[in-house]
Amino acid sequence: MAVYTDVNEEQLAAFLSEYDVGTLLSYKGIAEGVENSNFLLRTTGGTFILTLYEKRVNRDDLPFFIGLMDHLALKGLSCPLPIPRRDGGHLGELAGRPAAMVSFLDGAWLRKPQAPHCREVGRALAAMHVAGADFPIRRVNALTVSDWRPLWEGSRDRADEIQPGLRAEIDNELEILEAGWPESLPEGVIHADLFPDNVFFIDGQLSGLIDFYFACNDFLVYDVAICLNAWCFEPDGAFNHTKGMALIDGYVSVRPMEAREADVLPLLARGAALRFFLTRLHDWLTTPDGALVVKKDPLEYFRKLRFHRQVTSGSEYGLRAKDMIS
Amino acid sequence: MAVYTDVNEEQLAAFLSEYDVGTLLSYKGIAEGVENSNFLLRTTGGTFILTLYEKRVNRDDLPFFIGLMDHLALKGLSCPLPIPRRDGGHLGELAGRPAAMVSFLDGAWLRKPQAPHCREVGRALAAMHVAGADFPIRRVNALTVSDWRPLWEGSRDRADEIQPGLRAEIDNELEILEAGWPESLPEGVIHADLFPDNVFFIDGQLSGLIDFYFACNDFLVYDVAICLNAWCFEPDGAFNHTKGMALIDGYVSVRPMEAREADVLPLLARGAALRFFLTRLHDWLTTPDGALVVKKDPLEYFRKLRFHRQVTSGSEYGLRAKDMIS
Repeated sequence: MAVYTDVNEEQLAAFLSEYDVGTLLSYKGIAEGVENSNFLLRTTGGTFILTLYEKRVNRDDLPFFIGLMDHLALKGLSCPLPIPRRDGGHLGELAGRPAAMVSFLDGAWLRKPQAPHCREVGRALAAMHVAGADFPIRRVNALTVSDWRPLWEGSRDRADEIQPGLRAEIDNELEILEAGWPESLPEGVIHADLFPDNVFFIDGQLSGLIDFYFACNDFLVYDVAICLNAWCFEPDGAFNHTKGMALIDGYVSVRPMEAREADVLPLLARGAALRFFLTRLHDWLTTPDGALVVKKDPLEYFRKLRFHRQVTSGSEYGLRAKDMIS
Repeated sequence: MAVYTDVNEEQLAAFLSEYDVGTLLSYKGIAEGVENSNFLLRTTGGTFILTLYEKRVNRDDLPFFIGLMDHLALKGLSCPLPIPRRDGGHLGELAGRPAAMVSFLDGAWLRKPQAPHCREVGRALAAMHVAGADFPIRRVNALTVSDWRPLWEGSRDRADEIQPGLRAEIDNELEILEAGWPESLPEGVIHADLFPDNVFFIDGQLSGLIDFYFACNDFLVYDVAICLNAWCFEPDGAFNHTKGMALIDGYVSVRPMEAREADVLPLLARGAALRFFLTRLHDWLTTPDGALVVKKDPLEYFRKLRFHRQVTSGSEYGLRAKDMIS
């Protein structure tokens, strides 16, 4: 759930007076997103999402996030378009927090995505990579391989509470990933969190991508590795090869993959699984029980990690020779 | 917050196929209401609120609640209009729960209502009482004077944990209210929960009433007593006489009050304060800390109760001789 900060009518009126969006008709807190407070806002000028950035988001990153949405939307990618204030800026202040309004995107996220949806996700991810190529601001990935060890150190002592043996296994995994992580691959702006709840569909067709608040510069194929984790496992934990193939097929139909990218896909998929395991583990151990957030099971990603460890080539994810360029 | 039950796309498609509302465009859980799961739904046919009735709502009461909204909306009161299914019914099933769709009402609830808003609330409350007069279904108030003692018995032993002396004071209060509660007064359908978050305004004008899930048959003036509690106290606990006068003025401008109703207003206001004190106390003592609901302080209503106990006549709330008919 995600309304950490309520907004009263005086605060909202003052905020909206900086925009050309007409008269307020309604605003309702929405129960999606876990980092910020989000409201669905209707005015005589349209429907919008109003976001108050809570403390987990670094204010210095906001020009990147908002500029990126603006850049991608203007390039034709279907994503929320930041609404400019009268002074041309995109960022205001509301209830003591930085706040922005973006256009409302129709569509609903899929609780049970199927292979054809994965194909569309692959296409949209590649389209985002292409559209982001000339975005001028850079943001370092704050959750890449070098960040995992400090994150792990904060949870390591209690890891065996979650599952006996976890500590030793993750210690070992981390060493392998640190030693083997590639140094150079095609880079660009990645979404870095393209889970099903961040992709909207209408009537089976992808209608847009949302939530760019983990976006950063990193290896493009790492984003594919994240999506394989997020979209291609079944609720019972099994990897669905058909979904993997569809996702990769969709991706390479827009942006072909180089052989060196394909080669490291299994390793990057392990890394992506570890990254989500580590943040979930951290949240699991530190979120108080009374918090308004549903805690996600870290072991789901530990099981995915174990799966990726058995994979020896991209073909096991559905990658085919025709998908690659050399 | 209020999404206890998530809905997947297959379940929603099956549910919507029973309605003439076009194609689904989006649905988002909304963080309002505490009893049910609510989604804001957009289709090519319009914008709706979809409610899944959770276990705190008795299924047998649903025809009353939904029929009442239909009745009031058709009488011209601005409230959600239940959307009929193709078969003419208003109730479906979704994710194993009874579910209904109602029209979306524009407007936002006021975090800081002022006296002119209280006047409008009084008018709207009276308009609801008038419009409800010929509603044919009846529902007994499940939280009236005779229900308070059993509710109190469940919390009584732990009451002094909240504030020393509370047990004795409520014991005494309950006896007085049980002995003095009126037997006969003008009756009808009351809202019974018309708090600020259930009244929408656009640009300072009242745009509608929502959340009829406590509505029942009871003394009409008891609803006024509830609104005095809900709208006319300041955050510091002081009763705002100007707001009280505005609320009553608004009410009697639509439905004059009989002298016998005015006479018992202080007693009914005590009762209303006790009713909200008791349910809040119960929730305070029984809601686990991990629940997704913000617990409301019961002592707020204990302090209001103490205020009402000092009141000897309706004039102290702002009721004037001109407001009454004999």
